Amino acid sequence: MDEGFRVTPWEVSGRVDYDRLIQEFGTSKIDSCLKERLQKNFGELHQYLRRDIFFSHRDLDIILTDFEEGKKFYLYTGRGPSGHTHLGHILPWIFTRYIQEKTGSVLLFQLTDDEKFYFKEEMTLEDTRKMAYENILDIIALGFQPDKTRIFLDTEYIKTLYPVAAKVAKKITFSTVKAVFGLENSNNIGEIFYTSLQSTPAFLPSVFEGRDTHVLIPCGIDQDPHFRVCRDVAPKLGYPKPALVHCKLFPSLMGAETKMSASLPETSIFTTDAPKVAKKKIMNAFTGGAVSVEEQRKHGGNPDVCSVFAYYQFMFEPDDAKLGERSTACRAGNVLCGECKQVLAERVIEFLKAHQEKREKARAILEKFVVRD
Amino acid sequence: MDEGFRVTPWEVSGRVDYDRLIQEFGTSKIDSCLKERLQKNFGELHQYLRRDIFFSHRDLDIILTDFEEGKKFYLYTGRGPSGHTHLGHILPWIFTRYIQEKTGSVLLFQLTDDEKFYFKEEMTLEDTRKMAYENILDIIALGFQPDKTRIFLDTEYIKTLYPVAAKVAKKITFSTVKAVFGLENSNNIGEIFYTSLQSTPAFLPSVFEGRDTHVLIPCGIDQDPHFRVCRDVAPKLGYPKPALVHCKLFPSLMGAETKMSASLPETSIFTTDAPKVAKKKIMNAFTGGAVSVEEQRKHGGNPDVCSVFAYYQFMFEPDDAKLGERSTACRAGNVLCGECKQVLAERVIEFLKAHQEKREKARAILEKFVVRD
Repeated sequence: MDEGFRVTPWEVSGRVDYDRLIQEFGTSKIDSCLKERLQKNFGELHQYLRRDIFFSHRDLDIILTDFEEGKKFYLYTGRGPSGHTHLGHILPWIFTRYIQEKTGSVLLFQLTDDEKFYFKEEMTLEDTRKMAYENILDIIALGFQPDKTRIFLDTEYIKTLYPVAAKVAKKITFSTVKAVFGLENSNNIGEIFYTSLQSTPAFLPSVFEGRDTHVLIPCGIDQDPHFRVCRDVAPKLGYPKPALVHCKLFPSLMGAETKMSASLPETSIFTTDAPKVAKKKIMNAFTGGAVSVEEQRKHGGNPDVCSVFAYYQFMFEPDDAKLGERSTACRAGNVLCGECKQVLAERVIEFLKAHQEKREKARAILEKFVVRD
Repeated sequence: MDEGFRVTPWEVSGRVDYDRLIQEFGTSKIDSCLKERLQKNFGELHQYLRRDIFFSHRDLDIILTDFEEGKKFYLYTGRGPSGHTHLGHILPWIFTRYIQEKTGSVLLFQLTDDEKFYFKEEMTLEDTRKMAYENILDIIALGFQPDKTRIFLDTEYIKTLYPVAAKVAKKITFSTVKAVFGLENSNNIGEIFYTSLQSTPAFLPSVFEGRDTHVLIPCGIDQDPHFRVCRDVAPKLGYPKPALVHCKLFPSLMGAETKMSASLPETSIFTTDAPKVAKKKIMNAFTGGAVSVEEQRKHGGNPDVCSVFAYYQFMFEPDDAKLGERSTACRAGNVLCGECKQVLAERVIEFLKAHQEKREKARAILEKFVVRD
């Protein structure tokens, strides 16, 4: 991955070529055959599948075969609680909820308070734990089923996790974490050990059920390295390899080819942003507009590089036809950036208001979701 | 440590020069001043101090100052449950019990079931856990005070341990474990992470008490590397550095200059050995005897290299005068090896019978000692 971009669980930089990532990571494209099968099984195809936002997988076909045969599988996803939740984080969660809705699967939701403590110099463990509980409010607000959703913090579920993590850790050498994650001698031993804890929930369903149980992990493609290691280890421990579905990384407001990042708060929409703040961020966003109104009316804009268009595509225009119209209108110079931003801001504000209301209500039902040792 | 011997927590080889170890590890000798102070405080000097079996320390003087000022400190020691307990293991435990008796200190006793799983290729976690409970019977049999002794397995106390271990781990790089323990890229990430868990009980008393609390760790000198790292980390986390008292390594039956090792069962006395088995091992022991009876009567034996003499010195002759007489008689050729072994065998069998009885009784009171999350 030396030509202009880099994707690891802790760093995404450059313009990501997702087709090349499929080749380099050795994953499979979610092709039209698989989409047809998904549509057949789930009745409808989620917009993230229609738009190739969930674009890559490992063994999704095995999970579908399970489902077609009436066998149950678990879902597993997670969050590194280094800050408040932004829209990029909830993208795979929305997709996870969709699969839960369609399949009735039990979901394990891991909050890696230890990971973020290890990797963020300035954060204390108390900070990451506190932030984990903030993030949990967002998870619950998305509408997961309380009787089928088990949310946990690593440090609060460690007695359950550690014996399995130890078995994973015994099968992973420093050479492996060096090669896969680029860790070095100067990394701390928590960072080095950590991946074993991210593997563990992929094996817990087999432990819980007392027999081989398949697991599907919806996640950003940047998390795939953890699960490559996890899948290598699985047969050595006698567990089935987890399956994965990978999504693209939600762009920041700096352009469609950038990744939303919590470290640049002005360029991401957080679920906790006040409407006014969110609107201001959107009005300042990078677009595919021309240098002047005249120029844009004449030659049109470019939605391909436009962060505002990306927002419509990733979350705020569920109707494919209308999304197409918006793109056509932009290219034809029939819509100006200010107008497009204005509409997006309204939709984002509408989303935030509803989400924040559900987020507040989540406080009262939090204990229905959280599991601890 | 390139001149003929090597001491690490996982390997002791060659003839250990304990004076040089003090220099190389940077510890302090337990000198006559410190012994006087110990005698003054504790009323009597344990035979392990009189005989320089506990020979080295770090900050023992600070612990004594605490004690003299009426401040309490904690004791902490441990066991890697890779097999049954042999006499070499219980040596530091006997000394720990002596300090508990003299000071009334609370003892944290760690069983590192995870460590032995990481480091022993052939052992499962279920094996090390099972063995930990065998070892606990020996610990209890030694007579620790139930209300002041908390014994735990890492995997069963991990929810208490992990948050502190994570803080320790964040301060230790792979470079450090490489330099201190000789770990390499081919070591598994559990082995690499593990030292943070051995440090943790040194800091738990401060967590429990809510204020800086001193801890004294009696242990074999081979465990010092863990606590060097631990002591380096302590000020970075705002905890006091733990103090240590180090003992020499109980010789095997292959000679006074070897270390008792569980991997050579024929050369060690296990607490679970049947009297007949123990006797046979002793009768086969390496001694400092001459090549023939005539030769020995004439020139005498050499107790300095004799494993049988070492057994008297380390455990089975509490009377210093009588130990001296035995040495003199040997050198003078007045006592033959068979005779000396016979007496030792009787004493060892007496010890084993009494210990095994207490060990069986320990089953009924085990839950008074074991703490879990």
